[in-house]
Order: sequence, then C-alpha cells, then structure tokens
Amino acid sequence: MPRIKAVNHVAVVVEDMEKSLAFWRDALGMELRGLRDVPAEKSQVAFLPLSGAEVELVMPTSGDSGIAKYLAKRGAGMHHLCLEVDDIDGMLAQLKSKGVRLINEEPRIAVDGKKYAFIHPEAAGGVLVELYQV
Amino acid sequence: MPRIKAVNHVAVVVEDMEKSLAFWRDALGMELRGLRDVPAEKSQVAFLPLSGAEVELVMPTSGDSGIAKYLAKRGAGMHHLCLEVDDIDGMLAQLKSKGVRLINEEPRIAVDGKKYAFIHPEAAGGVLVELYQV
Repeated sequence: MPRIKAVNHVAVVVEDMEKSLAFWRDALGMELRGLRDVPAEKSQVAFLPLSGAEVELVMPTSGDSGIAKYLAKRGAGMHHLCLEVDDIDGMLAQLKSKGVRLINEEPRIAVDGKKYAFIHPEAAGGVLVELYQV
Repeated sequence: MPRIKAVNHVAVVVEDMEKSLAFWRDALGMELRGLRDVPAEKSQVAFLPLSGAEVELVMPTSGDSGIAKYLAKRGAGMHHLCLEVDDIDGMLAQLKSKGVRLINEEPRIAVDGKKYAFIHPEAAGGVLVELYQV
C-alpha cells in the first residue's frame, strides 16, 4: 500500500517577494535557504526550511503564468499543500480506483528528477494537494 | 532570539466531515488519530498526523462560529498554517517591535494548557499564521 509520509512543504503565492521576505525572514526570523528562478513555471521561489516541512513563497514572474492567474483570481495566500509519498505510481493508481479527480494522471518529473503530481482541488475539498515522491 | 522550529499543522476548513474523510483517510490512506468536538470554537476537528506536521480538518458545527463565517465567505480549502515557536512571548514582542499586525497581542491558552496566538493575514500576505509554543 502506498503511504503518505509527511508534509513536504506549504506553498504560498505572493505578490511581492521582498515584502514577503520582510515578514517570513526578517520578522519571524526564518532562514532563507535559497531564492530560485523557475523559468518553466515563470515564477521565483523562496525556500524557507524548518525541521520537517518547509514554507515556499512563489511569486509569478510573468502575467501569463498559471501562478499569476491564480493570484489574479484568488489573491495572495496559501496555494498548495505538498505531501510526501513513498510510491507515487501506486498512490495515483489507488486514487484513480477510488474515482479521485487528478490534475496529473501520470507523475511529472521535476528538474531534480523527482516525481510529482497534483490532485484536483475539487477532489480535496478546495485544497490543491501535490504528491511528491522523495 | 525566539525561533520558529517547525510546521505544526495545516488546518483545512471543510463543509462535510464524512466527505472529507473519504478523501484524506480513505483515498489517501492517512491515519485518523482523533475526531473531536471543540465547543469553544463551535467546530469539529479531525486530526490526521504525519511524521512531523499534521493535517487538521475543521468543520463548523454552528452557523454563527468564526469558522462558519470563513467558510461562507472564502469557501472550503486551506484555513491556516501553524508554526511551532520555542518562545511565543518573545516572538510576539519581536513581531510587535517590527510593526507586524497581530490578531492576538498576548498568547491565548488552549484547553491543553499550551500557548498560541494568531498573526493577522494582512501582515503575512494573505496567510493566516498561528504561532504555537509546544
């Protein structure tokens, strides 16, 4: 049986990275491990690791990106919840067998080679859930 | 210096607990550790622990509760992000000194005796952040 192991990260969509870092890094004192441009997603991502799960801030770098559209429609705030799974292929098969609507029917491959897939928020009560095999 | 240590939980507001558990518990296979009525919050909370952070599902049990108003206004989905802090009094003093808007200027005491406080989402780019001293 595939198993959900942990929360990997919580992604927050932000309008202004510097203003956001003034809160998360400077006011809360969280460590900024990295700030990376992700051209494939037309976004910039800040990684703020904690023990266990981390917080990621995602800012669109182009108006036509998916994240820019989300921001325009829903406003800034929590964007998705990423759960670690030990067997993403098995989990996607299990979800399909239970009629759970998926955004990605098959795992996608991240730049670091790891597999991920998104479940449709309609299936998860309005939460955009990412599965990530680490 | 007060320090943010970990993500404690991600709270999800739900309309229908049984339908939500059909996804989180039955489809994803996450363990339901407990289902508790919280009369003070006029809500019912399901606890789904993982290694490290846990997922909590919160359903209003009365139409005049804060969580019911949130649900009516924003719909189902992620509600708040709870961060563990080693010194909540020190952290609240630090946030005040930086002009961060708080919902709770002083820590509140949970039924289990632990201290918590919420930061205003306006200060955190639309994210409702809970601080929790464990």
